[in-house]
Amino acid sequence: MNNTDRWLLPDAIEEVQPPMATHVEALRRRTLDLFQTWGYEQVMPPQAEFLESLQTGLGNDLDLLTFKVTDQLSGRLLGISPDLTQQVARMDAHSIGRMGVARYCYCAPVLHARKSSLLSSRNPLQVGAEIYGSSELSADIEVICLMVALAQSLGLDSLTLDIGHVSIYHAVIDALALNDTQRAELYGLMRQRALPELKAWVHANVADPEAQALLMDMPTWSGSVELLHDLTSRLAQYQVESQLTALQDLLAVLQQRHPEVRLHLDLAELRDYNYHTGLVFSLFHKEHGHAIAKGGRYDDTGAAYGRSRPATGFSADLKTLGSLTDPGLRQVRRRIYAPVGADASLQQTVEQLRGEGAVVVQGFSGEPAEAKELNCSHRLETLSGTWQVVAV
Amino acid sequence: MNNTDRWLLPDAIEEVQPPMATHVEALRRRTLDLFQTWGYEQVMPPQAEFLESLQTGLGNDLDLLTFKVTDQLSGRLLGISPDLTQQVARMDAHSIGRMGVARYCYCAPVLHARKSSLLSSRNPLQVGAEIYGSSELSADIEVICLMVALAQSLGLDSLTLDIGHVSIYHAVIDALALNDTQRAELYGLMRQRALPELKAWVHANVADPEAQALLMDMPTWSGSVELLHDLTSRLAQYQVESQLTALQDLLAVLQQRHPEVRLHLDLAELRDYNYHTGLVFSLFHKEHGHAIAKGGRYDDTGAAYGRSRPATGFSADLKTLGSLTDPGLRQVRRRIYAPVGADASLQQTVEQLRGEGAVVVQGFSGEPAEAKELNCSHRLETLSGTWQVVAV
Repeated sequence: MNNTDRWLLPDAIEEVQPPMATHVEALRRRTLDLFQTWGYEQVMPPQAEFLESLQTGLGNDLDLLTFKVTDQLSGRLLGISPDLTQQVARMDAHSIGRMGVARYCYCAPVLHARKSSLLSSRNPLQVGAEIYGSSELSADIEVICLMVALAQSLGLDSLTLDIGHVSIYHAVIDALALNDTQRAELYGLMRQRALPELKAWVHANVADPEAQALLMDMPTWSGSVELLHDLTSRLAQYQVESQLTALQDLLAVLQQRHPEVRLHLDLAELRDYNYHTGLVFSLFHKEHGHAIAKGGRYDDTGAAYGRSRPATGFSADLKTLGSLTDPGLRQVRRRIYAPVGADASLQQTVEQLRGEGAVVVQGFSGEPAEAKELNCSHRLETLSGTWQVVAV
Repeated sequence: MNNTDRWLLPDAIEEVQPPMATHVEALRRRTLDLFQTWGYEQVMPPQAEFLESLQTGLGNDLDLLTFKVTDQLSGRLLGISPDLTQQVARMDAHSIGRMGVARYCYCAPVLHARKSSLLSSRNPLQVGAEIYGSSELSADIEVICLMVALAQSLGLDSLTLDIGHVSIYHAVIDALALNDTQRAELYGLMRQRALPELKAWVHANVADPEAQALLMDMPTWSGSVELLHDLTSRLAQYQVESQLTALQDLLAVLQQRHPEVRLHLDLAELRDYNYHTGLVFSLFHKEHGHAIAKGGRYDDTGAAYGRSRPATGFSADLKTLGSLTDPGLRQVRRRIYAPVGADASLQQTVEQLRGEGAVVVQGFSGEPAEAKELNCSHRLETLSGTWQVVAV
């Protein structure tokens, strides 16, 4: 690599330049402040952990996203964190160890070994909020409302909320007595909604014609609340009434709390990372092809760390939110040029102005053009013995 | 690894739990706000780059701290960023490409493959500020004053500032005509101030008795400003007058601007990462055994990316600063319990209180004990038809 291409960045790994970085920082603050007023406590998981701590047997999608390195101090493998949820589960189960309901939030960069979709970033700035210790539907409702409140507080409207429930899929699959390979194949086909391949697979692997029809129909289980009525009788034998009722209750509450958000049921939605166990939800914005935030219930993840707790939460990439929101959120400060010099009264004036929140840029050359070069609208000048701010 | 030890963290890699995480977040904001009022623009370099972009031939200490992974998309090696300075140099040289003086600041976690000292963290939260495009002493003065202002704004006093100038060492060494191996050996011995080993090495590798005496004396070149007078005649043949004058001028300015900070000259101070080219400076606090912030001049680092620019800056670990500062900096908010329920007027009251900055935690169980469990000092109750905040 020579000097002329050392500046290249790896594919799908991005830096954030000014002024966008200042905007993303403003979003970070607004987001964490919002989470805090809802009672969520901030945590900071590390960027790397023992690989086994990141792999809790809940699907291998996250494993494929994880960069692995050897730890020179222990000789063991470390994983560079691709997602903070597992780590928050570890903290809740062990290091924090609170007994009752606990709410956590975080904001930190994560790193992906590969792209999770064609246009996705490999270094998102992940923000998220999680509730541990409650299996109530109220907890899912709170998390979904917080996700919507976040988008709205950043000025995003025209929102669509996709709601699914992965345990309905699992209930149907469990009844089929498939082996692990078959389960993985079917899961992959369902996630991709690859209809012709699904049809071929179902005919080759499932004997019962009724089950065949159900599986092939499943990718189309999306739409409005009426879908639930149709499914209630059709899924009677799979004992998923409580899930269907939860969906119905959830939609009713969301309809009332957020009539401005479009609701969309999607029972064929299976998640990328395969650690969800119940309700799943994604928020969409008209100007972005992928979900801008998503989450769901992932009960019992903490069991891998010695304490099983119900959990629900969501996360988003702040850089994506930054690209969709108005940079006007960033605070505009007055930029004042101060000449070079060790004059004590000049330094005092500079400190005072900075203390009041103005940007004061000190020159080095003392050239008259310096104030303009430094993009300042004002400058400090001595008028009748005192330093005063005047327009450039 | 079984369930009972999956919660272990690797040696010297730490998580930050509540309430410390909230405190560190408050320090982050205060720090970046301070940098902004001094005219520094925020940048966000990525957590990983092509290894060659992080290795610019400026010493191998940073290389030893860098975790390396293979990039599946390009087949090339990536480095997980161990320090953000090189990346900011790349951004200044290429992606931002500003012509005049540019000031940048940043705050992001970095990761170290090994410990840089016995007790150091392998995942510091690095904050820093850098000036590009000025070789003036004024730029170094500004950066040093900003470093002091940061510590003071966080309530840290009893500060000591160590000042060195690595080019004085280099001028002496250059005159000895050593080969690369000898230079590296000598650099290592000087950095460790290993006096007996240094003596043996000097006798084995340097013939001139005057140069021998100078080298063996060098580790003791620390103290007050008088040291400079003694050295002026002794170093006459090495043409370091301009460096000695710069040190003298710098000390005079710092004395005047920060009489409360103890100044300490240390011309034997050679930096860990070996990319500095001129003045180096470290800030010490009485309660911490290592520097709490350090920096220096590193001209021409940008040459590796196709544009050579003078540069000076400093960085610090916010987690270290967090451990030394008063958690009282963190904003204390009132915690109010709100009962579970879909009552629209309740939701309206909750939203209003959150908008005013209070923490409102919504219950899920509706049990009377819930407010206490959730650590709330107040609760929402209906009094004569309206929701009101009452003490628990």
